[in-house]
Amino acid sequence: MNKGIANYNVGELFDYFMLVRAANKGIASNGKPFLTLLLKDVSGEIEAKLWEATSEDEELFVPEQLVKVTGEVNQFRGRSQLKIHSIRPAQSTDGVHPNDFIEKAPVEKDELMARITEIIFEMKNPNLQRIVRYFIKKYQEALLTYPAAVKNHHEYVSGLAYHIVSMLNLAKELKVLYPDINKDLLYAGVILHDLGKTKELSGVTAPSYTLEGKLIGHIPIMVEEIGQAARELQIETEEVTILQHMVLSHHGKAEWGSPTPPLVREAELLHLIDLIDAKMNMLNRSLEKVKPGEFTDRLFAMDNRAFYRPLFDE
Amino acid sequence: MNKGIANYNVGELFDYFMLVRAANKGIASNGKPFLTLLLKDVSGEIEAKLWEATSEDEELFVPEQLVKVTGEVNQFRGRSQLKIHSIRPAQSTDGVHPNDFIEKAPVEKDELMARITEIIFEMKNPNLQRIVRYFIKKYQEALLTYPAAVKNHHEYVSGLAYHIVSMLNLAKELKVLYPDINKDLLYAGVILHDLGKTKELSGVTAPSYTLEGKLIGHIPIMVEEIGQAARELQIETEEVTILQHMVLSHHGKAEWGSPTPPLVREAELLHLIDLIDAKMNMLNRSLEKVKPGEFTDRLFAMDNRAFYRPLFDE
Amino acid sequence: MNKGIANYNVGELFDYFMLVRAANKGIASNGKPFLTLLLKDVSGEIEAKLWEATSEDEELFVPEQLVKVTGEVNQFRGRSQLKIHSIRPAQSTDGVHPNDFIEKAPVEKDELMARITEIIFEMKNPNLQRIVRYFIKKYQEALLTYPAAVKNHHEYVSGLAYHIVSMLNLAKELKVLYPDINKDLLYAGVILHDLGKTKELSGVTAPSYTLEGKLIGHIPIMVEEIGQAARELQIETEEVTILQHMVLSHHGKAEWGSPTPPLVREAELLHLIDLIDAKMNMLNRSLEKVKPGEFTDRLFAMDNRAFYRPLFDE
Amino acid sequence: MNKGIANYNVGELFDYFMLVRAANKGIASNGKPFLTLLLKDVSGEIEAKLWEATSEDEELFVPEQLVKVTGEVNQFRGRSQLKIHSIRPAQSTDGVHPNDFIEKAPVEKDELMARITEIIFEMKNPNLQRIVRYFIKKYQEALLTYPAAVKNHHEYVSGLAYHIVSMLNLAKELKVLYPDINKDLLYAGVILHDLGKTKELSGVTAPSYTLEGKLIGHIPIMVEEIGQAARELQIETEEVTILQHMVLSHHGKAEWGSPTPPLVREAELLHLIDLIDAKMNMLNRSLEKVKPGEFTDRLFAMDNRAFYRPLFDE
Amino acid sequence: MNKGIANYNVGELFDYFMLVRAANKGIASNGKPFLTLLLKDVSGEIEAKLWEATSEDEELFVPEQLVKVTGEVNQFRGRSQLKIHSIRPAQSTDGVHPNDFIEKAPVEKDELMARITEIIFEMKNPNLQRIVRYFIKKYQEALLTYPAAVKNHHEYVSGLAYHIVSMLNLAKELKVLYPDINKDLLYAGVILHDLGKTKELSGVTAPSYTLEGKLIGHIPIMVEEIGQAARELQIETEEVTILQHMVLSHHGKAEWGSPTPPLVREAELLHLIDLIDAKMNMLNRSLEKVKPGEFTDRLFAMDNRAFYRPLFDE
Amino acid sequence: MNKGIANYNVGELFDYFMLVRAANKGIASNGKPFLTLLLKDVSGEIEAKLWEATSEDEELFVPEQLVKVTGEVNQFRGRSQLKIHSIRPAQSTDGVHPNDFIEKAPVEKDELMARITEIIFEMKNPNLQRIVRYFIKKYQEALLTYPAAVKNHHEYVSGLAYHIVSMLNLAKELKVLYPDINKDLLYAGVILHDLGKTKELSGVTAPSYTLEGKLIGHIPIMVEEIGQAARELQIETEEVTILQHMVLSHHGKAEWGSPTPPLVREAELLHLIDLIDAKMNMLNRSLEKVKPGEFTDRLFAMDNRAFYRPLFDE
Repeated sequence: MNKGIANYNVGELFDYFMLVRAANKGIASNGKPFLTLLLKDVSGEIEAKLWEATSEDEELFVPEQLVKVTGEVNQFRGRSQLKIHSIRPAQSTDGVHPNDFIEKAPVEKDELMARITEIIFEMKNPNLQRIVRYFIKKYQEALLTYPAAVKNHHEYVSGLAYHIVSMLNLAKELKVLYPDINKDLLYAGVILHDLGKTKELSGVTAPSYTLEGKLIGHIPIMVEEIGQAARELQIETEEVTILQHMVLSHHGKAEWGSPTPPLVREAELLHLIDLIDAKMNMLNRSLEKVKPGEFTDRLFAMDNRAFYRPLFDE
Repeated sequence: MNKGIANYNVGELFDYFMLVRAANKGIASNGKPFLTLLLKDVSGEIEAKLWEATSEDEELFVPEQLVKVTGEVNQFRGRSQLKIHSIRPAQSTDGVHPNDFIEKAPVEKDELMARITEIIFEMKNPNLQRIVRYFIKKYQEALLTYPAAVKNHHEYVSGLAYHIVSMLNLAKELKVLYPDINKDLLYAGVILHDLGKTKELSGVTAPSYTLEGKLIGHIPIMVEEIGQAARELQIETEEVTILQHMVLSHHGKAEWGSPTPPLVREAELLHLIDLIDAKMNMLNRSLEKVKPGEFTDRLFAMDNRAFYRPLFDE
Repeated sequence: MNKGIANYNVGELFDYFMLVRAANKGIASNGKPFLTLLLKDVSGEIEAKLWEATSEDEELFVPEQLVKVTGEVNQFRGRSQLKIHSIRPAQSTDGVHPNDFIEKAPVEKDELMARITEIIFEMKNPNLQRIVRYFIKKYQEALLTYPAAVKNHHEYVSGLAYHIVSMLNLAKELKVLYPDINKDLLYAGVILHDLGKTKELSGVTAPSYTLEGKLIGHIPIMVEEIGQAARELQIETEEVTILQHMVLSHHGKAEWGSPTPPLVREAELLHLIDLIDAKMNMLNRSLEKVKPGEFTDRLFAMDNRAFYRPLFDE
Repeated sequence: MNKGIANYNVGELFDYFMLVRAANKGIASNGKPFLTLLLKDVSGEIEAKLWEATSEDEELFVPEQLVKVTGEVNQFRGRSQLKIHSIRPAQSTDGVHPNDFIEKAPVEKDELMARITEIIFEMKNPNLQRIVRYFIKKYQEALLTYPAAVKNHHEYVSGLAYHIVSMLNLAKELKVLYPDINKDLLYAGVILHDLGKTKELSGVTAPSYTLEGKLIGHIPIMVEEIGQAARELQIETEEVTILQHMVLSHHGKAEWGSPTPPLVREAELLHLIDLIDAKMNMLNRSLEKVKPGEFTDRLFAMDNRAFYRPLFDE
Repeated sequence: MNKGIANYNVGELFDYFMLVRAANKGIASNGKPFLTLLLKDVSGEIEAKLWEATSEDEELFVPEQLVKVTGEVNQFRGRSQLKIHSIRPAQSTDGVHPNDFIEKAPVEKDELMARITEIIFEMKNPNLQRIVRYFIKKYQEALLTYPAAVKNHHEYVSGLAYHIVSMLNLAKELKVLYPDINKDLLYAGVILHDLGKTKELSGVTAPSYTLEGKLIGHIPIMVEEIGQAARELQIETEEVTILQHMVLSHHGKAEWGSPTPPLVREAELLHLIDLIDAKMNMLNRSLEKVKPGEFTDRLFAMDNRAFYRPLFDE
Repeated sequence: MNKGIANYNVGELFDYFMLVRAANKGIASNGKPFLTLLLKDVSGEIEAKLWEATSEDEELFVPEQLVKVTGEVNQFRGRSQLKIHSIRPAQSTDGVHPNDFIEKAPVEKDELMARITEIIFEMKNPNLQRIVRYFIKKYQEALLTYPAAVKNHHEYVSGLAYHIVSMLNLAKELKVLYPDINKDLLYAGVILHDLGKTKELSGVTAPSYTLEGKLIGHIPIMVEEIGQAARELQIETEEVTILQHMVLSHHGKAEWGSPTPPLVREAELLHLIDLIDAKMNMLNRSLEKVKPGEFTDRLFAMDNRAFYRPLFDE
């Protein structure tokens, strides 16, 4: 395995595979077209210019395409840039896979699936359990591979499932501390709350927003899906409405995308658990990158705050 | 027909039918139960006390029940109150109907239906037309009788259909002034935008919010319904998503209940047309009640403003 | 023990002890002074009128005074009112204590203290541990008896300690789920965050805001206290500043009383844990009072929402 | 006529007239002054550098000056730039006029004037009619040539009159749908509402804000003008105050520049009509530039939304 | 002179003159009309009921009317109320004047006028001085008698002039501390800033908002007046625009009624001086009413804060 | 003395001392490290590049270091840049001092100290006077040299003391105009309100925020300091709490950093005086830089407004 593009110094020669994250066409001063490619591997991203690009190039080098590229790492206005010497699409015989070039959750898919299955097994309310099983079956592949977002938190392969499992663990502990909680309702809410992202986002490798994602959004998408599932499963009891409400209200406020705020205890908790897990994911990853005594960069999704890592330990 | 409860003076004897709008049980100082009834006819409402109420009374005098009542109009703390002499439920032989005791739109149901049908007939896009027809068929009775809201604007029988027809007329004129508009999309949006109210509200006669109305709300309800209709009609083209977006965004902003703001021209127009018709309905009805040179009461749904009726004419 | 004022019906005779919660003087239409007393026991509160009150009465019947009262439960404008037949201050020979007339945490003081001690014992950072021990020693009595607030949540005897212990339990579980957390810092923050309330509030029995509470508030009070403690303990390391920051930022935002928002991971968590425990306390107590299928009253401290209690179980 | 600067490719030679939109002096690395000119024709704008500019150049090449320029279209940091070979002011013998180099409303001045006259003729209230006629006479030239704004909507020659005529058409239709409207008041409000822009902006060709525009603004300017007109016409009836109120309140809210919100029905409508016409103008022009299935750029004056153009037709 | 209605006890007989502040007609339970009068003198206000009022009574007892009244001070629902025995309009022979029944500024009109004149004399800029003199002449009587507001601050006879003089004194000191200030501009702004109140309010004795006050407001009214004055005085220099800007911007922000915020140094200062003098007026009058160690009532115009009066002195 | 870096033209040779304001390391395209230095003297700042910087250079050229530098003033992308020919740290024999390279208050330290002393001498309340004296003694050096802020207003040597003295002068005049003011309390508040800045900021020469400054802030820091001082001086009266409240509330609102708003008259005044002096400082310095008839740059701390300097004089 290659050492990763982020670890190359200016002047070094790169000669390995990367994934095309984005590709934009431009016209150079000499009137000839060129491509600005954004290439990535698990370590990071680099911009690359392919001068005098042919129309064939334009068709070959598109997002999600894996490429073999050689070139020199330069610096242009303070940022690294790859000066491409040669580039070609990766072939099946190259033995590389796009998934090896994007970040992954720290836990394997199978393990995440096992944990979710275990929790579903603990549920006693048959209606909630059947609805959850319906979705696990219908979206299993996507559920286990999609990121939880395109940026900010859990923005990597299996990020969605990893986020769900962390929240389930938290939900389970809260049930111990506050026994009045209806754990089945909370578990079902946790598992389904962001599943609409599998329709909101275009895919795993280079996710962008779909038209449905932009115009409807994952929350109303999922509310509709639950309604449809209930009709198929012929469940007409209150569990359906309450579960739709859990999903609908999980952003907490109208300004944050929930037209109805949480009006059921477990819905309020779902919102809070989601907040904690997303924030811990952002904070831990940012704090890892700095040394004790330093501040992180400003975190946009944390109200633009920079966080301090204290000098002392437990 | 009776002259209407609002036109009785203090001291007069009332002896006719009214509709129970609300009923609440209380305990008097002597320890005996009593009922506070809110009775109404088309002219207005009056509070009435039924002292020493039996448990049979409690069961008889419930919301939506039509009653025959005699009593004297008194005044208590500046407000009229009916002192009940006798009261009994109306019977089929009385020849009265609840609908005669609640306010109605100024246009008849048949005429409203005819106008909607006419507009649907003008639509050329087959997918939009089929979806609209599906809903007209499915909800015809409710569409033609429900109010558009429980208060503020069009809060009377057939208010929803009347609101739709006014908006359709406005939409038709806008198409003339701005020919780029996709009129089929706008018509479809106008007809369907508030149809979820037929599930959000409990009924026509004494409407209150249903559980689904409180926890989900008419907007997500209708987004789901359109999805379901499309599946039944096997329509899978972009019209479905755009129509769902029209309904989803018609309140204009997240703070006002639309998690996605309008991102399609016709969706923006739908929001504006809805605004104009609702405001004109509120303003006209309030201004009718005051004389030239006076201000109306403060209108809660118009940012609590009191409006002035000028002295001069055209 | 008496059955509690909340369980008396209109017309019943009350003859037992209650605590004076508030006392206000008025002048009756006949020009004679009277006292409006708010009397309470653990079950609830009732208003009582003492007509033709003497100046001696005014001095006797003041907040926090325990009284023996006989009278009849009446109803006035829909609310219960006690018509006093006779009233006198309780005496030491009566064998009653004010604490028996106010609500208490569901866990005993000793047990709460034991749990806090246990947690402190787990702390490894000596500076944090010493500061926490300093405060436990200095404020032990108040810490174990004060409410956590005058209303909304944990507004009863030992409410503060009960709130701390719940939060410590939650903190301990979070450490398991997110091992990067500095648990010592989080524990210290939890134990100290609201301790300034013992200066902000006037006492346990009938708490009101002190002048210092109104003009400074429990957050700056506690920041100062930590600084003073550190000087006495001669601790000059970063732990002091970070701990002051934890307390200062625990309301999360400037608008909510924290001039600096959380800028340390454990400070962010402290804010979130505080939110969860306060909200669960409010929700559980409100939901207990309603039946499945009903909504609670609107909860002011939960953005005025009314919460629904579903019909179904786990 | 030239094909328009926006249609030149990199490398092409430009040799025609353009209008100076802005001119800024700079000092090059060699210490010599140069001019950065922004040149425009109806098709668009281009930046041009005039190196080693003399002080005479500085005086010649100023905003609103028409120039004859030859040069090569280059590209600099991704944007087109004109490398000037020669430049001179246009002369009367060149037969070109600044108005030919700026965008115009799609309807001719005479036609716009005719439509406004027609509407005024329909007015019956003599006071409103006289005031409107006073202003048409006083500001006819400016009214028919000014843009309605410097950017966002109707920002072209005759934009103001075009905006007024569109709004008048809309007002006329609304009168049919809602006959209670005082059409004379609404027409007068529409015609006068933005007339203060003729003092707020510096002119037609290259409009910027005047000092009066910056410190007072078109709304208070016009309120004063109406007061002055009424004194000259010796009209002292309520129409004057109401018309001033129409202008004052037409931005709808204090935050948007109306210290008093609309408190008269026709003032509320004026605000809504203004909103619709401005939004339709922005939306139509942005949507024309994109293909079906694409999103427009983000529109600043539409809350920074990007709008989608659907694939399907009516 | 009478001791003042606020100093009467329940049961006492009142027999003197008072001013009618407001009068509302009602219908009693017996179907007969009655008048609810709000009567006042300098000490305070009291509600009075005139039962079985004739239509002559309705015409006689209107706002601003001085009346001779005898009656008994009662108490009704905790508030004082005057039970009228007899009432008649005051007559010229009674030797009483409405002004004696309303609060006045602590400084006499003549003295206020002298101070304003003195300041105008110090002005050197002839244009500003002429405009100010124009207004002093035009509105002298109103300027010296009007209140500065209907409630909150300087809400008494000559309140406007008193407010102006306090602000002029403050402006003069600021000129000493910050010599860059253009004192003439600041003085002119101070004198004219609230003069529009003489058109916004209905009068001195029982001020309410005029139609012009409600629909236009004192700020745009005064901007127009300055424009008109300048035309009459044939002043066309920048002073006019800047002075209009001073008045227009003196509320500081759009949300507070200034569509343009201060963009000139002296305009910013005018806003701040206005704030200080209004706040000091409110604070001093509220703090006078409480004893050291107490809080005032909540002051609505001070963000609903209650202020503390400390125990210690200088 | 040198003419100041801001007065050099492009192409001129600079050969004198400057102060390093900031230093950042970069890597050039050739892979070699370079330093970007921000150099300053009293006239302004300039960016300078030190190519092929050694690790010794990195250690030598750090913030607050005085350097002797020769180089040519160039222009790069429209901004001046110094091309360094030679650079070395200043030595004690050079006879230059960092303080000569940073801006200073227009009044000398001694004079500022004398004025503060004079005011303290006027105070009569012994507790307030003792607390103020305690701080003057403890922080005299810092108080007289620190800036009042790192940017926006009084951001120069002795800025804090200069700000205090201006505010004291203003406070003294206000006491004359509003004699109810407790001048001792106001003086004490003025002197202490920003003293926490001496801990919030790192120093005088090149101030940045300390960790304590970022995590606690100057307001809570100073509240704690006053508490500590009172304990040392054994003052336990209300003056301590009120003085802490003055400091705590002087930003006026929670959103602006004061968790408690002013609840004492003198606290409200302190806030207003602080506002006036800060704003006058910003406005005067910005307006000095422009000519009559021009606007200043947008001032960030004045809500991003650009201010106009009128053409006319007093």
